[in-house]
Amino acid sequence: MTKVSNRAQVMQASPIRKLIPFANQAKAKGINVYPLNIGQPDIPTPAPILDAMKNYDTKVLAYSPSQGEDCLIKAFVNYYARININLKPEEINVTTSGSEALFFAMMAICDVDDELVVFEPFYTNYGGIATETGVKLKAVRTYPENGFHLPAKDAIEAVITPKTKAILICNPNNPTGTAYTPEELNMLAEIAEKHDLFLISDEVYREFVYDGQKHASIMELDRIANKVILVDSVSKRYSVCGARIGLIASHNKEVMEVVLKFAQARLSSPTIEQVGAQAGAEMDASYFEPILKEYQQRRDAIMAGLRKIPGVICEVPGGAFYCIAKLPIDNAENFAKWLLTDFNYKGESVLVAPAQGFYATPGLGVNEIRLSYVLEVPKLVKAMEILGEAIKEYNKKA
Amino acid sequence: MTKVSNRAQVMQASPIRKLIPFANQAKAKGINVYPLNIGQPDIPTPAPILDAMKNYDTKVLAYSPSQGEDCLIKAFVNYYARININLKPEEINVTTSGSEALFFAMMAICDVDDELVVFEPFYTNYGGIATETGVKLKAVRTYPENGFHLPAKDAIEAVITPKTKAILICNPNNPTGTAYTPEELNMLAEIAEKHDLFLISDEVYREFVYDGQKHASIMELDRIANKVILVDSVSKRYSVCGARIGLIASHNKEVMEVVLKFAQARLSSPTIEQVGAQAGAEMDASYFEPILKEYQQRRDAIMAGLRKIPGVICEVPGGAFYCIAKLPIDNAENFAKWLLTDFNYKGESVLVAPAQGFYATPGLGVNEIRLSYVLEVPKLVKAMEILGEAIKEYNKKA
Repeated sequence: MTKVSNRAQVMQASPIRKLIPFANQAKAKGINVYPLNIGQPDIPTPAPILDAMKNYDTKVLAYSPSQGEDCLIKAFVNYYARININLKPEEINVTTSGSEALFFAMMAICDVDDELVVFEPFYTNYGGIATETGVKLKAVRTYPENGFHLPAKDAIEAVITPKTKAILICNPNNPTGTAYTPEELNMLAEIAEKHDLFLISDEVYREFVYDGQKHASIMELDRIANKVILVDSVSKRYSVCGARIGLIASHNKEVMEVVLKFAQARLSSPTIEQVGAQAGAEMDASYFEPILKEYQQRRDAIMAGLRKIPGVICEVPGGAFYCIAKLPIDNAENFAKWLLTDFNYKGESVLVAPAQGFYATPGLGVNEIRLSYVLEVPKLVKAMEILGEAIKEYNKKA
Repeated sequence: MTKVSNRAQVMQASPIRKLIPFANQAKAKGINVYPLNIGQPDIPTPAPILDAMKNYDTKVLAYSPSQGEDCLIKAFVNYYARININLKPEEINVTTSGSEALFFAMMAICDVDDELVVFEPFYTNYGGIATETGVKLKAVRTYPENGFHLPAKDAIEAVITPKTKAILICNPNNPTGTAYTPEELNMLAEIAEKHDLFLISDEVYREFVYDGQKHASIMELDRIANKVILVDSVSKRYSVCGARIGLIASHNKEVMEVVLKFAQARLSSPTIEQVGAQAGAEMDASYFEPILKEYQQRRDAIMAGLRKIPGVICEVPGGAFYCIAKLPIDNAENFAKWLLTDFNYKGESVLVAPAQGFYATPGLGVNEIRLSYVLEVPKLVKAMEILGEAIKEYNKKA
């Protein structure tokens, strides 16, 4: 019988989306479910972006250049210049979302069975894209106890083999919220230099760094400029996840030349959405101030709530809008499902993402969950109260 | 030194786009260049599509479901029902362009080094996507002398090995314009049945079949329904190439289950463009009547022009808006470049795509070009006159 491929079978279904049917069943029973599972911001998309798309006037909605619309690339160059990252237009290729940028990055530098160093827990789609490209992820473990910051240099070097092509980070991190320090990036630069590796950084949450800290970008690592590949997206930055516009950037000319060939194989990114992304990239940095404040309040609310639950381990994350919480329960998969099928507190419950899907190593993250804080503060306060009650009741049953 | 991958190096740059810099130089010298290289229709995008996108009202431009927006899938189900193809919603996954649909199809059924049978010349991006997915294309040659129709069964069966997973066709064909007959499809069905292969059909030009003929779809091959995978796109159908909305469809449940996992790894297709695609899919079939007439007139104009040039071989193509013409010249790559750098006829020239890039076998198509007829009839008449003069002058020089 005609069969699907092995790689199709080993592809992981989304751990973020797979509980949604149970959430829908709970809602059908009249239970109010707070969604803490997915990174879909509730922040309104800025009017200039929506207006630019509405006002885009064309007779023929045509292909755009494979590299991206010239005016969008120019807007990105200026956006980066404002945050002291100097990129030339030819060092940027627009992509259909950050996912495609990552796909191009992996294809550009890895052949099948080449290896990438990642830090687990990591964004689950890194695993999916690695499966698609035949790349092996070598996961180095990070721990909730120290806020998922990078391990010592020797722990990272221990997984490097002749097949290793790059180290891949997400900074600030999805799913942990960790914002890496300049010292951590410097350590990675030293490793990249010593072992002749690329360093890929997914910086789609760049603007969301809290407590007055400044985001540390790999684009500042001038001495390894030629080894650095930036993956970016406007999705979270401007609350335009549905636009699917991202980019890949590098000072490495050879990398950008092959990226363009991959871009040509899919012809172009969506045209109107590039017009919207351009309006976003042209917005003043002051746009982020109230949003940053709002997210920081949310983070503080969720952390305050978690601290009230006995036995939970969750260091204060420095960025993005996620955290991984280690819970005093036996199994987060069962718990997360039970929350939707067998539990409610005053008619309400929560939808969370079990963290196991964010780990490559089997058995890790078994009692951890990822929480997104893309709801208003009062809802997050309620959700954490519900989570606390749930843990109590779940453990009573067990 | 950190290097790009081998697969990145073997990726082919677009043979359709690579002469564009020379065309721009010719234009800078004041030469009027007729673009016959690219499949970007000049037909206006229908107002209902543009209006639907303009009127799309949202506070947050959010992710859509990985399978695609429910209402778009429903519109596609109805579109297919109108042309007697019965698909259920769960048998369709919206994709970000036909390219992504092909990528998903190859990933779903092929592992690295598995083989696909294709007919050369073929759409160049099949080669690019095969390189990305590590799939080997086994090309069976077709010939200008019989309008690039399929060869006899034994010529196809001769390239099938235990590694072969599918036969991939484009119908009507890009780059040849060939519309396959029901008999040809039946032959492919017999082969698929006998050798237990999938049959993938790219039918993005479905509506563009001329001379009153009806398009023959693989979705009509009921006896191998479980082996059939449809690749589709709204780009050419409604002149919305910049929307990047396509789909993959199959009655094979296992295939559609794994396709959803690949779709989840890139989260979703662009939201607003799906709204536009829905408006397109909901349009009445009468929309195509004047467009079909226009394209047929163009095809007739380009064929009449080619017939006047001594030594050109080009059978009348039955569909799409392309043809491959075999020219009485030594080398189409040199000729196409020369047309832009060293030639003009009364201040005008033409931009064509050398056909070599559409062949997998080195040395084939060396004196062939692909022509797109996405210009009005008077321009095509002029362009063919110029092509005739150019061939005369080019051969005088040689």
